[in-house]
Amino acid sequence: MIKVAMVDDRITPAENLDPAYLDRGLYFGDGVYEVLRSYNGRIFAFDEHMERFAASLAAIRITGIDIQIVRERVERAFEMAGLPNARIYFHVTRGSEPRNHSWSADLKPNFFLTVTELVDNPRDKAVGIAVCTHPDWRWKRCDIKSLNLLPNILARQAAMDQGCEEAILVNEAGCITEGAGSAFFAIIGGALRTAPLSANILPSITRRFVVKAAVNLGLPTRQDCLTPQQAAAGDELFLAVTTKDIVPVVKFDGAVIGNGTPGPLTKAITTEFLKFTV
Amino acid sequence: MIKVAMVDDRITPAENLDPAYLDRGLYFGDGVYEVLRSYNGRIFAFDEHMERFAASLAAIRITGIDIQIVRERVERAFEMAGLPNARIYFHVTRGSEPRNHSWSADLKPNFFLTVTELVDNPRDKAVGIAVCTHPDWRWKRCDIKSLNLLPNILARQAAMDQGCEEAILVNEAGCITEGAGSAFFAIIGGALRTAPLSANILPSITRRFVVKAAVNLGLPTRQDCLTPQQAAAGDELFLAVTTKDIVPVVKFDGAVIGNGTPGPLTKAITTEFLKFTV
Repeated sequence: MIKVAMVDDRITPAENLDPAYLDRGLYFGDGVYEVLRSYNGRIFAFDEHMERFAASLAAIRITGIDIQIVRERVERAFEMAGLPNARIYFHVTRGSEPRNHSWSADLKPNFFLTVTELVDNPRDKAVGIAVCTHPDWRWKRCDIKSLNLLPNILARQAAMDQGCEEAILVNEAGCITEGAGSAFFAIIGGALRTAPLSANILPSITRRFVVKAAVNLGLPTRQDCLTPQQAAAGDELFLAVTTKDIVPVVKFDGAVIGNGTPGPLTKAITTEFLKFTV
Repeated sequence: MIKVAMVDDRITPAENLDPAYLDRGLYFGDGVYEVLRSYNGRIFAFDEHMERFAASLAAIRITGIDIQIVRERVERAFEMAGLPNARIYFHVTRGSEPRNHSWSADLKPNFFLTVTELVDNPRDKAVGIAVCTHPDWRWKRCDIKSLNLLPNILARQAAMDQGCEEAILVNEAGCITEGAGSAFFAIIGGALRTAPLSANILPSITRRFVVKAAVNLGLPTRQDCLTPQQAAAGDELFLAVTTKDIVPVVKFDGAVIGNGTPGPLTKAITTEFLKFTV
């Protein structure tokens, strides 16, 4: 039982605390999330995101969530927001109770959602961005979309301090896994290259559609180890992320990629990808 | 800007949201914490915990926290609780703002603290506990006491499902790092054995005092790789954790340790350790 609670410098009666202060999502990052986007009033890849969300919940053993109810909440909030191009974030945590590693069997999960306007960044897409590598410090279950994101934000910030827009994570084997908040792709010798799906990367939905786009274009795809050296010498590079779809990369750890502008196959894949969103 | 927010199934105006809902501690586990305890009205190892807390803050680049002010808050809440044997938990997160990997330069950190009564478990200390191993899935900076604790709680729960009280984490090299929420020790051939301090374990304060107790008793200490096989064949095993000081381990992955009761050197170390707490 909590005898005294304190929020900033104020002593707060435990019974007056908003349950958010006792959220296991806050104490332990004990929750999972999704980010959806809409294109022109339609949520993209809704089924795929909900399937992945259900898999994340199961992987961390959060039970008692009816995915259909989550889906209806997403739809209700999206309609209420009235934004044609929206970013929808939501998470489920295991629930709120006084801090203890093990959880109560009857704990009720918490749900939280926000809808914000998604403003495209045409400049990044037109001229491309710079990325910097960072050691992949994340845990061994990056296939779960969990709230344990401290290594991601620290890597992103370190990249930004070096004038980069994204951190590209490199594991101990010397292979690129993915970006701090994106999937990473190279085009080398006419083939699309990316890390294979495994416990050390997120099964990105956008990645899946990028691979489909490459198939439609007749581009071969290779999913294996890609080193920073190979990427830096690649013909074209790009990121894939739900809220920005495809973002060309024109600088990798300071090395200029191709002629320093977004490449033709990246553009072709983007055009193909956007067909899935209409 | 948040257009629509939803807490459970209720649409909530963004401007009415408690800042706790926008806490980066919740979105990313972007914060660090400490757990202190008191013995008979006196906080144990207060300086050591505050030093470690300052190091954790610096490691994740949370600035603008005056450690002296945190110290005063801890003292104030502890006095107000009036509990001779108290558990004091507190964390600082980077602050509250709409979700974005990178943070605003002027973000104000959030502080949260609770004081609860610490009830000793004499039975565990008298008869010892069982532990089970689990792969160490944590990130590569376990020396930072951060809010990214999902691998810890999943390992603890898996251990409990097997009738164990604690999970002992084993890394890819086959070495025991530490418990999900404790430091791990073995006594083998009259020497105290534990993992060396590095980026893959927490610099446990209780561990430090256990090592001091061993020195006082004239026991040699070896800090190197200890495998589960070596531990299971050890003469004595125990855990060290702030809120429970020393807990004997009498079963390791089902193997009975010694004669199945807490060993004499564990008892001697405990007696020596408790001298530091008065």
